[in-house]
Amino acid sequence: MSSQSILSFVPGTPASQLAEWMRFFDSTGTTATRQFLGDAPVIIAHGPGVDTRPPSGLPAPVAKVAVTGDFRLGRRELRPQGTVVRIGETSVGDGSLSVFAGPCAVENEQQLLACADVAAHYGSVGLRGGAFKPRTSPYSFQGLKWAGLELLAEARRHTGLPILTEVLDPRHVERVAATADGLQIGARNMQNFELLTEVGKSGLPVVLKRGFGCTVDETLAAAEYVLAQGNDQVILCERGIRTFEHATRFTLDISAVALMKQRSHLPVMVDPSHSVGIPALVEPVSMAAAAAGADALLIDVHVAPEQALCDGKQALLPDDFGSLMGKLELLAMGLGRKMAGVVRPALADAER
Amino acid sequence: MSSQSILSFVPGTPASQLAEWMRFFDSTGTTATRQFLGDAPVIIAHGPGVDTRPPSGLPAPVAKVAVTGDFRLGRRELRPQGTVVRIGETSVGDGSLSVFAGPCAVENEQQLLACADVAAHYGSVGLRGGAFKPRTSPYSFQGLKWAGLELLAEARRHTGLPILTEVLDPRHVERVAATADGLQIGARNMQNFELLTEVGKSGLPVVLKRGFGCTVDETLAAAEYVLAQGNDQVILCERGIRTFEHATRFTLDISAVALMKQRSHLPVMVDPSHSVGIPALVEPVSMAAAAAGADALLIDVHVAPEQALCDGKQALLPDDFGSLMGKLELLAMGLGRKMAGVVRPALADAER
Amino acid sequence: MSSQSILSFVPGTPASQLAEWMRFFDSTGTTATRQFLGDAPVIIAHGPGVDTRPPSGLPAPVAKVAVTGDFRLGRRELRPQGTVVRIGETSVGDGSLSVFAGPCAVENEQQLLACADVAAHYGSVGLRGGAFKPRTSPYSFQGLKWAGLELLAEARRHTGLPILTEVLDPRHVERVAATADGLQIGARNMQNFELLTEVGKSGLPVVLKRGFGCTVDETLAAAEYVLAQGNDQVILCERGIRTFEHATRFTLDISAVALMKQRSHLPVMVDPSHSVGIPALVEPVSMAAAAAGADALLIDVHVAPEQALCDGKQALLPDDFGSLMGKLELLAMGLGRKMAGVVRPALADAER
Amino acid sequence: MSSQSILSFVPGTPASQLAEWMRFFDSTGTTATRQFLGDAPVIIAHGPGVDTRPPSGLPAPVAKVAVTGDFRLGRRELRPQGTVVRIGETSVGDGSLSVFAGPCAVENEQQLLACADVAAHYGSVGLRGGAFKPRTSPYSFQGLKWAGLELLAEARRHTGLPILTEVLDPRHVERVAATADGLQIGARNMQNFELLTEVGKSGLPVVLKRGFGCTVDETLAAAEYVLAQGNDQVILCERGIRTFEHATRFTLDISAVALMKQRSHLPVMVDPSHSVGIPALVEPVSMAAAAAGADALLIDVHVAPEQALCDGKQALLPDDFGSLMGKLELLAMGLGRKMAGVVRPALADAER
Repeated sequence: MSSQSILSFVPGTPASQLAEWMRFFDSTGTTATRQFLGDAPVIIAHGPGVDTRPPSGLPAPVAKVAVTGDFRLGRRELRPQGTVVRIGETSVGDGSLSVFAGPCAVENEQQLLACADVAAHYGSVGLRGGAFKPRTSPYSFQGLKWAGLELLAEARRHTGLPILTEVLDPRHVERVAATADGLQIGARNMQNFELLTEVGKSGLPVVLKRGFGCTVDETLAAAEYVLAQGNDQVILCERGIRTFEHATRFTLDISAVALMKQRSHLPVMVDPSHSVGIPALVEPVSMAAAAAGADALLIDVHVAPEQALCDGKQALLPDDFGSLMGKLELLAMGLGRKMAGVVRPALADAER
Repeated sequence: MSSQSILSFVPGTPASQLAEWMRFFDSTGTTATRQFLGDAPVIIAHGPGVDTRPPSGLPAPVAKVAVTGDFRLGRRELRPQGTVVRIGETSVGDGSLSVFAGPCAVENEQQLLACADVAAHYGSVGLRGGAFKPRTSPYSFQGLKWAGLELLAEARRHTGLPILTEVLDPRHVERVAATADGLQIGARNMQNFELLTEVGKSGLPVVLKRGFGCTVDETLAAAEYVLAQGNDQVILCERGIRTFEHATRFTLDISAVALMKQRSHLPVMVDPSHSVGIPALVEPVSMAAAAAGADALLIDVHVAPEQALCDGKQALLPDDFGSLMGKLELLAMGLGRKMAGVVRPALADAER
Repeated sequence: MSSQSILSFVPGTPASQLAEWMRFFDSTGTTATRQFLGDAPVIIAHGPGVDTRPPSGLPAPVAKVAVTGDFRLGRRELRPQGTVVRIGETSVGDGSLSVFAGPCAVENEQQLLACADVAAHYGSVGLRGGAFKPRTSPYSFQGLKWAGLELLAEARRHTGLPILTEVLDPRHVERVAATADGLQIGARNMQNFELLTEVGKSGLPVVLKRGFGCTVDETLAAAEYVLAQGNDQVILCERGIRTFEHATRFTLDISAVALMKQRSHLPVMVDPSHSVGIPALVEPVSMAAAAAGADALLIDVHVAPEQALCDGKQALLPDDFGSLMGKLELLAMGLGRKMAGVVRPALADAER
Repeated sequence: MSSQSILSFVPGTPASQLAEWMRFFDSTGTTATRQFLGDAPVIIAHGPGVDTRPPSGLPAPVAKVAVTGDFRLGRRELRPQGTVVRIGETSVGDGSLSVFAGPCAVENEQQLLACADVAAHYGSVGLRGGAFKPRTSPYSFQGLKWAGLELLAEARRHTGLPILTEVLDPRHVERVAATADGLQIGARNMQNFELLTEVGKSGLPVVLKRGFGCTVDETLAAAEYVLAQGNDQVILCERGIRTFEHATRFTLDISAVALMKQRSHLPVMVDPSHSVGIPALVEPVSMAAAAAGADALLIDVHVAPEQALCDGKQALLPDDFGSLMGKLELLAMGLGRKMAGVVRPALADAER
């Protein structure tokens, strides 16, 4: 297994000083590479027993971590306070609890705007919706594609909510990124490394869904593909794994939420809807995710689930979503957290 | 698949009236069997298309359920308000959140009493501790056996906490039941049907742990073995299942907690300690379990985990357990629930 | 992890000489215990860095193995040539391929004798059949119990085939062992350690089925419970594990067959019928098991599967069983092995 | 679930006649689509209760299948005799057993040519080798990429073996297809539907590896993405799934081999090396795969496994590969099959 020392510096550290560090490593026969974690310059010195005492006159790193294995830029030690990811005006990872809601797939203008209204009304801070849908079968509805993306932009104008949408093909990243506020990598593409590299380059916030057959370690490794492009705006998303238990669609790995928070500085999102696939379980599982420390939830909401073209049966009805949002707010208080962006409808009405 | 109608009657319904119901079914050519769900007489009429309209002059059942398959006495429809299980003075399933804590195994008097004191001090409502330990290897410590049971009784006298302990062998049930307040069936024995039948006959409360390779449906079916003996004092316990993810010892199936609560009237307990096997994850997972609706938690606490003879590394230290109890109490408030038996230490100190 | 040296001696080594070895260990401050692996005396010297050079005048062990962990008596190093298990007149583990066939459950005299005839006709070397059935639900057929055991004895008289049957309860072992030729421990009881100890004491051959949620290591550890009683007549049986794939009832872990053969001296059996649960897959999976090195196969055969009271749908019809036996015989030739007990029907007919 | 009737016609059926069929469906209000299964025209008539009796004067379909769900072109009913896939001069799926061998990754000229020589010497019919490697971590060796592809072409000139290599990115397909004889879709990309569509368009033979978290049904559905492009040259490849058992790297799903053969007309390959990840298990598992009906095996062979840059520890040494090939040949005889392309070295030498 590889062994490295990682040095992280304050943003704005002059390139000349970093170059001196590189010369220092070179002089000691140590291979070193430069990267960025967001704005912060990072130097990775390869090999065991690396000497990382700062040569006099050079800036001391703000974090210095000895690392075995390939989990590097995402390690919590490099940023103990955690990373805040900004999607539109929303901050994920600042201690608040954020909810992103919307339909699984964009189906048409009316459906999308109605769902977006519901999401906004109850305090969702972002709108989810798939324009490009990865479907098990080539004969299933594959999404409205570019037209769906246009509709998402319209829904954003309509509600003010930033839009989060999936991208499937490295050839599409640039164009999708031109419209979306956040890019979602679906579970089936978590190890589509070409795609990860492209969304890394886009600079846009990335919601990286854990593959349903992938481990926590592999999820963290996949995030490195994005981080290695200098893009630190990554949210890890637990959405259930495959197990022998088929009473639910997947098995939400609740421990993984806490584990990823402890190991990595990246915020963690949970998708209860796709995990369980049963509306009646979305509420308790959402509550559990928040209590386990999730920074955000991703929830399927649909105004007419029975007519949905994709995964409709797992979506919450508007009223049930409203009820959930109320309970999450009370729960957040019990956790000493606040809900991002929630203006309680009753209060808001009274204030107007 | 079998098909039945289940009729449940108020406790105290005269045997003569139930006999008339049986004669009625007999007269219509329907096979019927009598059972009890706790004190409530139950008649199960077998076959599809059963006529269950009460013959005039006979008591109407308080619940009448048409059932396909073999999940019968545990169904929530038979007792929509839920079952309350009494272990000592503690009620599990009444809406409160109960914590049972203690060491994985009883090791000696000093260790057990110290752990029991910690459990009691921070508001645990019961003491867990294994006298008989089912170990993967015959060469591992197998528990203090009967001597361990004596020590548990001593710890009960010392702290007042009821004791919950595992039984492994149908030949031991009667003798263990004479001392314990609640019997635990371990995950490896969830489908040891001879043992389930014996603990059913004992009449004592039973904590039935889900097998780590068993489904929710199989767990509910295993509970029927206890219920079928007329013993309705059963707590279902989720303790993690085997999956490909090995970052944690098992994968806690958080959805199963909600699912079992919805399908069954039996209370649900969660064992975060054995699920995750990592102390740092016990707190977030306990919080998640409570938020998902668990009635009770079962937590390993040890005064010297590094010296434990069994599963020590997953036990919480006393301070961490105290910290968890404080957070659970705040969480319970956010959930609109109360914690069973908790006298907040600070308050208690002030009162003295 | 524990660390031991295991010394195995030739059968018949005088007790006085073993006692001298024990004194030698005692004199060097080493804890040692005596056991038997079949007829062979074994001394286990506990602790790291054990001195196992034979004191002069004492018999040298025939095998001497340094062992870390709790897998001891089953290790191949102790008996590189492998263990032969005798069930009736049949030898399992001598390089031949043995088939045990019969119905999942004993249902009545006519059914059992008809199935036994089929098994015998096509060259099965033993008859399988459950008198005590462990069923997920208490409301399912639980077997004919003692009456079923009597019928098995009758089928043995009728066909000459030794009988292999499951035992569920430690209280039943002695009485079942008085009739059966081999005892089967079902998957649900693989970690029912009280039961394992009892079947170990019985001295009868034991077919130990791997739990569907248990690892290979746990299976080997479970076998130690039997071996530790001095009973080396253990056959390990792979019968499928639980995975996310539900196209088959369980997932046969074919690698485990080879792995158990390499790690342990115990013979390995495979149960294709319960693994796959689909008759059309029994043949290819049986072929695969034999090619992977299995010593024996356990196959459900039924004369009227559609009327079976238990797991009927997975049983082979007589003709299909006959066809499989023919293919296995050709396969065995390709593997340089022979089939135990097979007299090819065609040849046999010609000889008459 | 969707419901269709699929009609398959003989290759060369005039377009005019197919157009008449389309008009016929149109006249009955049935939506129909035209596709190809290899050279054979196929018409899919959507909807339940489709009338598919041939209008007089029109060609009767050679196969007519009523289908529920989305598994369409791959169904065995459409081509009961099975599909033969041609990779270079090799035929996979004609009843013979083919072995493709080579290193996991192309590392340099010397390594590749040495491995290719070994593959060819012992009777491999194709050379495997990765130029583009999908690696869990961005910091691992990612393959020699285009330079690796050149080396593969050189190895083909050197040995005459057709080359099979993985493609990762839809943008690379055309260029890789210009050199390779067969394209491999790795397990991590089995549901990278954009990539599947591109390799479908390439017309080259495709080895589609089952995702380690994907079901058999999903694997068959993924194959439809390739088939739907008119490319019927698809080999399904079982390479192990993720389960709780970690004694092997993955768990080879041996039943899936037989199941895919029964459900689909596509040939099935097995990759024992990646399934088990342990050289000592490759032989028994290869034997099992062949006995279960696999058409082909994909085996890692390396001349210096300990120096391999990727997955070296699972590769067979040349001698072990030779030994395996000898055993497979004997096994094939026992199965009534022949090994493709094998000229036994000893015999060949003698004959010359």
